[in-house]
This record gives sequence, C-alpha cells and structure tokens, in this order.
Amino acid sequence: MKGLLRSALNGDVTAVARLLTRVEAPGDGAREVHEAAFPHTGKAQLVGITGPAGAGKSTLISKLAASLASDEQRVAIIACDPSSPNSGGALLGDRIRMHELVANQQIFVRSIATRDSTGGLPLAAFRAADIFDACGFGTVIIETVGTGQNQVDIMQAAHTVVAVSAPGLGDDIQAMKSGLLEIADIHAVTKSDFSGASRTLLEIQNAVHMRHRTTEAPPAWTPPVIAINGLSGDGVTDLQQAMHSHYGHLTESGEMQIRCQRMFRERIYREATRLLTQTFETTPDKQMADKLQQVMQRKMTPAQAARAILS
Amino acid sequence: MKGLLRSALNGDVTAVARLLTRVEAPGDGAREVHEAAFPHTGKAQLVGITGPAGAGKSTLISKLAASLASDEQRVAIIACDPSSPNSGGALLGDRIRMHELVANQQIFVRSIATRDSTGGLPLAAFRAADIFDACGFGTVIIETVGTGQNQVDIMQAAHTVVAVSAPGLGDDIQAMKSGLLEIADIHAVTKSDFSGASRTLLEIQNAVHMRHRTTEAPPAWTPPVIAINGLSGDGVTDLQQAMHSHYGHLTESGEMQIRCQRMFRERIYREATRLLTQTFETTPDKQMADKLQQVMQRKMTPAQAARAILS
Repeated sequence: MKGLLRSALNGDVTAVARLLTRVEAPGDGAREVHEAAFPHTGKAQLVGITGPAGAGKSTLISKLAASLASDEQRVAIIACDPSSPNSGGALLGDRIRMHELVANQQIFVRSIATRDSTGGLPLAAFRAADIFDACGFGTVIIETVGTGQNQVDIMQAAHTVVAVSAPGLGDDIQAMKSGLLEIADIHAVTKSDFSGASRTLLEIQNAVHMRHRTTEAPPAWTPPVIAINGLSGDGVTDLQQAMHSHYGHLTESGEMQIRCQRMFRERIYREATRLLTQTFETTPDKQMADKLQQVMQRKMTPAQAARAILS
Repeated sequence: MKGLLRSALNGDVTAVARLLTRVEAPGDGAREVHEAAFPHTGKAQLVGITGPAGAGKSTLISKLAASLASDEQRVAIIACDPSSPNSGGALLGDRIRMHELVANQQIFVRSIATRDSTGGLPLAAFRAADIFDACGFGTVIIETVGTGQNQVDIMQAAHTVVAVSAPGLGDDIQAMKSGLLEIADIHAVTKSDFSGASRTLLEIQNAVHMRHRTTEAPPAWTPPVIAINGLSGDGVTDLQQAMHSHYGHLTESGEMQIRCQRMFRERIYREATRLLTQTFETTPDKQMADKLQQVMQRKMTPAQAARAILS
C-alpha cells in the first residue's frame, strides 16, 4: 500500500484511481488507506457545485474544469449520483458528458453513488475528496443535486459553495426558494443566452442584496452573481476568478479556520453515526439475539441492551 | 421512588402521572424509573392509531376509549403532538377535546411533544407506553399523524395498527397513497354519515383485497375495513371487537412473538442512536476541541476522532 500511496502522491493517475477504489471499498482496508493519505490533505480548494436538476451543472463543470486545467493545475470532479431509478437516466447522461473530460490528463472524474437522493452526501465523497487533495489536485469539485439534505451536506464538504440556477426551469427564483441563498458563496446563472436569463440574474442579485441589507454588520463577502453560457464558455473565467477570490477571502479573514472546524465537527459526528450502524451490523447474531431475548423477557430495558451492545 | 412505583402499580392515578413526568424528564432519573417499571410490562395491548390530519382520529379515539373503559378496563391515550407552528392549532384543539375524557377515571390522556413532524415518534412515547402497561392499563392507544417517519415508527410501537381514513379530504384513496395500506391491521373509515364515505370504504376494501390477492399464501389476517361515525359512535364497538380479534390472532398464530422482536430490535437501535447523540452532547468542550484540533492538524482522521470520543 505504501508504494501505491507514494505513486499516487507523486501524481500517478492510475495509482490515484486505485487508491480511490480502495477507499470506497467496505472494510478496514478503506480506513487504512484513508488514514495514510489524510496527513497529506489541506492544500486543495474544495468547491461544492449544487443546484436543481436541469440547471446545466455538468456542462458548466466540464467547461470550468477545462479552464482550471489550462492553468496547469489538476482538477478533480466528484459527481454524486443518486441511484434513484427516477433520475438515473439524466444523471447517466451527465456522467457520459463529463467522461469526455477523461481524455484530458489534468482532469479526473469520479462518480459516487448515493444510496438515495434524500440521504445526503455519502461519506465516500468526503474520503474521495481527501484522496484527490492529498494527491495534489488543486481544485476538487463536488457536484450534488441541490435538494434537501444534500444542500446542508455540501456545506460540510466544501470551502466554497457555488449555487447554479437557470432560467426557464418553471420557477425563476429557484435559488431563493430552495434555500440555496443561505449557503451560496457564489451564484452562477447558466444558459445566459436563454430568454429570461437576465431576469433570473437580476432576481438573484436583488435577493443577495436584500439578504445582506438585513444583516447588521456589513458582510465581509458578498456572493457575486455570474452569468454563464455553458456552451460557449462565456463567464466561466469569471466564475474561476470568483472562486479564487473567495478562497483568498477565506484565508485572509480567518473564516477558513472557522469553516474547516465546522466541516470537521459535522464529519466526526457522521463518522460516529456510521460506526454505530456498523457496530449493530457486525454484532454477532447470537449476541444480538441474546440481548433481544433478555429484553423480551423484561430482564433488561432496550436502553440497557443498546448500552451493552455498544460497549 | 419505590413507594411511588408501588402506588402506581397498584393503580393510583396520581402516582402514574408522577411516574410519567419522571420518565419524560432528561437525565438518569428517567432511566431509573423506566428500568424499575419495565419488568412489569407485557400485558397491555398497544394500539397505534394513525391517519392524516382531519380524518377525525381524536373524536374516534374519545369514543373508542369510552367504549373500552365501560368494559372495566383502564385505557391510556398517548397523543403525539408535532410542535410545529403550522399544525399547533389543530392539535391543541384535539388535545382539549380529548382532555374531556380526563373526567373519566378509567381513562388517562398524555400528550407528548415531538420535536418536529418529520422526526417520527419520540422515545418518550415508547417509555410512556411502558409505564401505562406496567401500571395495569389494558389498552394503550398511541395516536400519531400518519406521515413519513411516523408511519414507520408506529409499527415499532404498536401490536395493532389502526389506519384512519375519511371521505372528503380531497383524495379518497389516502390510505393507499400514504402507504397506510402497508402497515394497517385494521382500517377505520370515519365520518360514515358523510357523502362519499361508502365510496371510500369500498375503495379501501378493494385495495385490501387486491393486496392480499397478490401475495402467494392466503393471508392469516385480512385487515377488516370498518365504517365509523365518530359523533354517534356507530361502528366503535366493531372497531373494539376487531382490535380484540387481532390481539387474539397475534397471540394464537405466534405472530406476537415476531412483532415484539421486531419492535424491540428497532427500539434498541434507536436507544443506541440516542446514546450516541448524548455522548456527543456531553463530551466536555475541551475534549471535543482537542480532538477537532488534532483533525485540523491532520494528526488523526475524522473517523479516528469519532472512535476516540465514543470510547
């Protein structure tokens, strides 16, 4: 494993791919790989890109990644696919579109299945981001469909959250409605060539200013609202520049420290929850049956049984 | 505490009320009270009554409780109120209506607040049910609004699930749509005097038969569909009889053993989750900050920190 890690840390793409496969596998092997790689993390900018289905996230990310890669940095894309049968088709399409990028040696795309679309970002996505970070990728993009728990989770995974909106999705104030306004560091309005794009842009700008006017102290960072044409690539360098500015703001203001603490605190809690589930799943059937029997016979309470299994 | 428990077990209503208050309080006191009472449980029939808001659950439960109490058994009602501001009004109304029952010494009503309407049945409801069971209440009714997690949870708390539907709630096949068909042991269609009631009744009957026709083996229990007029009380004794029959079916078929195992298994898991949250909440700030600092410095992974805090 040490040889593999060394190769990956030195930039060997095949070694990175093998590390990712190992870190996603169930069992103790994954933990060891992650523990070995973790001390090398902390250099990448983790960028969460979220928004409703159909907003053009994948097209945007393709262009953004190509632009970042042309600056001689390596870019990782983690695409979180809900394995829901409803949206499977569209996401598969996205994935295929993004896999065109694989031809570019500077860009690495990894799809991570989420068990269901409401369950939020899987821990595997956090670990994959760490592997990319450790292996010298300058920007790690984490793409999620911006609904429910995912929206909260993306804040736990990313330094910078880019909320993607688009005109013509039936509701021009999606960003506000879906709570993206609360979490966005940058707003991107895609399909800038569509009719209605300038209205969407204006509405989000107004919402951002309204929101900031209601806070007492002048905000240290006002989320820029950037119009983007995913097909022509217009606006993509503006987005790249905004991401760069936000990273600078975070480190200079001390906000980076606060964000990272919040991110890790939440992540420790999630790891603990996972440990709990694992403990239950790996408790020998006999021991579990024995405790259950004692509860059935009223010899111990469910709380006492839980305590006994956990210890 | 022993004197109080003895009084409660002997049927002193004031002592029961005081036990309930203690078992709902945070801290170790609640655990001790529950541990002392738990060995005395296992005699009551736990009946979950669930259905959409506005289906007339409270009116039905009032009549049902009065009918059960006239058979010289003591009846407990646990009403789980989501403390959501949206539904607070209606539920408060329900509670007041049900508190009229308090005049009847055979009937005991307890409201338990749920933190939010999606979080499901609180553990306090399970513990309150145990206290009532231990103190000789023959039937413990647990009322929940039948949405989302509550629906799953009611199966963990009750031997017998009664799904309540009503005509005129905008959708005559609520029972099917909301998944109540999956979990109901008995269907009650309230407001039998309303126009549309017979159609609702027929639709649920058809759905029940369809569902049972698709299973290979002939079912041991076919959920009866009972029309009820909550105001006049017509049909309430039929419901009471159906509950009685279902209890008989459970004990005679051996299904009771299977259900109780499933109920306790889930409950042990939930108690474990609560222990986990508690561990995090009670971890001294200094220890938590220390672990967080080590993760920030990449000296341990979030998973290692979680393990350290839990042990």
